[in-house]
Amino acid sequence: MLHLDKQFFQILHEQIEAGLDRDLLAQLVDFRAADIAEVIENLRVEDAHYLYRLLENELKADVLIALDEENRHELLSGMTAGEIAEEVLENLDSDDAADIMSELPESKAEEVIQMLEDNKQASDIRDLLNYEEGTAGAMMAKELVKVQAEWTVNRAIREIRRQAEELEQVYTIYVVDPEGRLTGRLSLKHLLLNAESTRTKINEIQETADIITIQVHESSEKATKLMERYDLVALPVVNHEHELIGRITIDDAVDAMIEDAERDYQLASGISEDVESRDSVWTLTRARLPWLLIGLVGGIGGAYVIGAFDIQKNAEMALFIPLIAAMGGNVGVQSAAIVVQGLASSNMGTQNMLSRLSKELGVGIINGLICGLLILASSLLLGFGTSLSITVSLSLICVIIFAALFGTFVPLMLNRYKIDPALATGPFITTVNDIIGLMIYFAVGTLIVGMI
Amino acid sequence: MLHLDKQFFQILHEQIEAGLDRDLLAQLVDFRAADIAEVIENLRVEDAHYLYRLLENELKADVLIALDEENRHELLSGMTAGEIAEEVLENLDSDDAADIMSELPESKAEEVIQMLEDNKQASDIRDLLNYEEGTAGAMMAKELVKVQAEWTVNRAIREIRRQAEELEQVYTIYVVDPEGRLTGRLSLKHLLLNAESTRTKINEIQETADIITIQVHESSEKATKLMERYDLVALPVVNHEHELIGRITIDDAVDAMIEDAERDYQLASGISEDVESRDSVWTLTRARLPWLLIGLVGGIGGAYVIGAFDIQKNAEMALFIPLIAAMGGNVGVQSAAIVVQGLASSNMGTQNMLSRLSKELGVGIINGLICGLLILASSLLLGFGTSLSITVSLSLICVIIFAALFGTFVPLMLNRYKIDPALATGPFITTVNDIIGLMIYFAVGTLIVGMI
Repeated sequence: MLHLDKQFFQILHEQIEAGLDRDLLAQLVDFRAADIAEVIENLRVEDAHYLYRLLENELKADVLIALDEENRHELLSGMTAGEIAEEVLENLDSDDAADIMSELPESKAEEVIQMLEDNKQASDIRDLLNYEEGTAGAMMAKELVKVQAEWTVNRAIREIRRQAEELEQVYTIYVVDPEGRLTGRLSLKHLLLNAESTRTKINEIQETADIITIQVHESSEKATKLMERYDLVALPVVNHEHELIGRITIDDAVDAMIEDAERDYQLASGISEDVESRDSVWTLTRARLPWLLIGLVGGIGGAYVIGAFDIQKNAEMALFIPLIAAMGGNVGVQSAAIVVQGLASSNMGTQNMLSRLSKELGVGIINGLICGLLILASSLLLGFGTSLSITVSLSLICVIIFAALFGTFVPLMLNRYKIDPALATGPFITTVNDIIGLMIYFAVGTLIVGMI
Repeated sequence: MLHLDKQFFQILHEQIEAGLDRDLLAQLVDFRAADIAEVIENLRVEDAHYLYRLLENELKADVLIALDEENRHELLSGMTAGEIAEEVLENLDSDDAADIMSELPESKAEEVIQMLEDNKQASDIRDLLNYEEGTAGAMMAKELVKVQAEWTVNRAIREIRRQAEELEQVYTIYVVDPEGRLTGRLSLKHLLLNAESTRTKINEIQETADIITIQVHESSEKATKLMERYDLVALPVVNHEHELIGRITIDDAVDAMIEDAERDYQLASGISEDVESRDSVWTLTRARLPWLLIGLVGGIGGAYVIGAFDIQKNAEMALFIPLIAAMGGNVGVQSAAIVVQGLASSNMGTQNMLSRLSKELGVGIINGLICGLLILASSLLLGFGTSLSITVSLSLICVIIFAALFGTFVPLMLNRYKIDPALATGPFITTVNDIIGLMIYFAVGTLIVGMI
């Protein structure tokens, strides 16, 4: 990969300042779109605009797609509708073009689409913009190669040549009936193996078994999962009449998978927006503040729980507050994370809530007993006294069991009501477990102190 | 996707008990390898063995690859070396075959390889087993389609047909010179577009620019990143002499990406092994115990920190222990997660440690001030008293700033010494931040109490 160091950017900046366009481009000659995007993301705004203007149109389009949303928005806002239509959209597949249009203000997007010379492209983009975000329709591209089942291999090859010229990558050739309904599939390999018998009909060599499709209104998440599960490089999208209307390709599916994984990870770490380490201090602050505020409220709640107990009289109870709070939070996060991952990879299809909870009860009891006995032994050995040691040990067992069950229950419930279960891995679970853990601790403490 | 419910498994079990093989297979007729693997993972062991034996050899091989390691091991242990060679390996690509061999005991693996009828396959597998785990070599398959640059299109098509018959999916045709060195690439689309001019030489139509390769000893992680970054469906692997020796395909790269993301996620959630929700109670317990034990030790450490302070005399200090501990842990995890993600997507190449830390200092100061002022105002309003409110507020600011810096510093240092930075998101950061947070809190408390 590239090593873009300070010196590289220093030279680039000087070349831009001096207007040494040829030297500038010579430096970037081996760079691919993703590389130039990374360069632009690390330039100051004016330099980014300058460099971008120097690129060839095809590269312009690819770089724009590879950029993060913020920088893309910045570059697009400096271009007229005509420039966007001619320099960018004409060089993009319909799905990427529609993505860019959806990021523009509606009036500007309409203006751009009207300026497209290719009417087919304009209507394709309009069509794609109509699908709701998060559906297979919004994720698919309209570009694909299709042949009719009753054509000969000869005619099919001629047609494929024509259609394929506009496509970057041909994965599969789809076979449709005269009404446009998907009936089969033809791999390029298959076609090549049969290319000599040019009079063979396509329907004699097409594969018809095992064609996995997705409905246009189904979720993009389902599309991604299908492609992952069955190792597909392209997934055909059909409508209610089973007409072939688009395809989803593996590169887009990969992007979606990575985005999902990053989102879950950030939620689990208490980050509320999609941020990167190079974002501004303010963006980073804003993304992290919500969890901290929930933590604050939880902390004040904790103060009230402790205040309700006569801590003055049993001050030694304070010693194990951090332990109880930390363990409740930890166990809750662990349990929630396992549920969230199970739901995401959908290998929980065969388990119902009750069986999940009873398993978690088992895990909680074992972990609780191990940790409880360990803390009992160590705190007795360390001389923290019998009643305190028993209190900590008993309450820790209860806290661990409760946190395990609660951490499992909440994401399952959220999922049942179609709320993102990953929300449960963040602030909510740890804060609630902190407070309930303290309640258990002090309740057990009062009981033990009362008894001994 | 499938809905495998209790009833489905009940019927399956009854059919297996009754030996109704035909009914059994009829139920599974639409199932693909990944689906049957899911079924097997949810059957009791004897039933799984029974069902597996009924499958056709090709399906057997694919199912085995789709299974999780535990179930695969179970099925393999019930097969003789001859069965594994004939029923499984003969139907697998070299990379999958090598993966399975690496999971067998060495003597059994050797026995299996000796029983292979295809000498080429045997030597391919032996070759792949020699590459260290985690390298591109260990991830690649030897199967690929290659042509010589000086061949005519005619001859190339003939050769491709021969080579392609053994391959499941042809992504790209590689062009090599007489010494086997990679010189270019030919897409099937390209070949199809030129198929009529059969006397054209391959070196006239091959693409030679922009061929991304990976060295066989480089890391598999780098291979995955290259494929993601440049939207590749196949990545050629070369040796030091630039000879083409294998290729990595997108389906394997996708599996690796998902595994990496899941690992990072589990580490961040305090889970130490790769577990799934359907694993046994004992496996789940074991995977979670390590973090809990670290938490226990941290909790005892916390008790000593509090014990060092005269909590009896200033019992109200106990009230905000949970708040301080929770906030330190939260901020630390947030900071570490952003670093880990940045390192994983390698968009931190242009930032050095100092600039990361100074940015984090900014984030810490802003978040610290906001949270500090909020807690000052609320605790004054709620009547917690001036000196306690000031103590909590001041120490919270310090804790947040410290935790942000520490959470950034640790994963960066781990990464510098080639240790997985994701380790820093789990137990270590939260526990250390808990304890240091408490130290700061009581130090500030002693100071304020002494002053007021």
